[in-house]
Amino acid sequence: MSGRPKGRRPGSSGAREQILRAARDTFAELGYDRASMRLVASRAGVDPALIHHYFGTKEGLLQASLRLPFDPEELFAGITPGQAGEQIVRRILTVWEENPAARQQYVALMRTALSNEQAAAIMRTVLAGAALHVLESIVSDRTAPLRAALIGTQLGGLTLGRYVIKVPAIADASVEELVAAVGPAVQHYVDGPVVAG
Amino acid sequence: MSGRPKGRRPGSSGAREQILRAARDTFAELGYDRASMRLVASRAGVDPALIHHYFGTKEGLLQASLRLPFDPEELFAGITPGQAGEQIVRRILTVWEENPAARQQYVALMRTALSNEQAAAIMRTVLAGAALHVLESIVSDRTAPLRAALIGTQLGGLTLGRYVIKVPAIADASVEELVAAVGPAVQHYVDGPVVAG
Repeated sequence: MSGRPKGRRPGSSGAREQILRAARDTFAELGYDRASMRLVASRAGVDPALIHHYFGTKEGLLQASLRLPFDPEELFAGITPGQAGEQIVRRILTVWEENPAARQQYVALMRTALSNEQAAAIMRTVLAGAALHVLESIVSDRTAPLRAALIGTQLGGLTLGRYVIKVPAIADASVEELVAAVGPAVQHYVDGPVVAG
Repeated sequence: MSGRPKGRRPGSSGAREQILRAARDTFAELGYDRASMRLVASRAGVDPALIHHYFGTKEGLLQASLRLPFDPEELFAGITPGQAGEQIVRRILTVWEENPAARQQYVALMRTALSNEQAAAIMRTVLAGAALHVLESIVSDRTAPLRAALIGTQLGGLTLGRYVIKVPAIADASVEELVAAVGPAVQHYVDGPVVAG
């Protein structure tokens, strides 16, 4: 605990969260290469040693700050195969609707991934893992990674369009209108014909 | 033509393209707010007056630099309603496959749109217009804007996943595998049940 500041400061999980928020903002604003640990520390109001203590290197900090703003395992528990398309779309949209902080985190995550190959590589792993969690109770053959990734492309495009770029027809629709429209497309990725190369 | 430099310089369309390339890189790297006309001029190797001559204000430059790297009207000419899903996916992917410059431009465009509300607003208009072009020969009722936007979310997510984030199952698939897998989902947005609110 050598790097831990003394006195009445935010508890360890509070400081950790503050560092992650500052890191997300800084990576998103400056890109991975130009963001420094020192700047993140100063924005989070902590000693740089504390960042090293929690996350080790700058790459460790990047990796921790690129976590998805929800737990995919929890979010997609109990999906039923025949209604998977609509259920998945409804649950994803509900998370975004109810959690403005998750939306901001998602924008930061996309900007960072677009700024640097290393960040894109981490995001790739995070997304592929999250998508596979969704499907593992439903499909387990060799088409599963492609199906999971296809669902990811649709959900990623939908949330980008609704919450970030705010394309009018998508941003103005109700959650249930989008569930009805997009659910069948996602259902097609769950159980429609898909050939894995 | 007052701002036009004399002598043997790149022709007007050459200089214009050079400015747009420098603008895209600069907006993507620094975001709209921190990118200056002076820096874009210096990177393009032209006099700042030439940028004002071609594009007027910084916002005019942003608008011109956010054009899609293809002409949607041309790209989607002669789509047949019953095969629209597969045709649209095949044509979009073919543009990206054959044109690495278009891919880079797309990344820059997404990064800029994610960095600034003004840039997002322009991208919104550009994307909505492009998507409507695709559909106008096929659907013309009041569901058309939502259908077009839904197709946009799927194509945007697919191209991001394949060319930018490079999610393995999507990046490794052949164009025809993706056409077969994603075509039916896009076809659903063209003629499946969709309720516009």
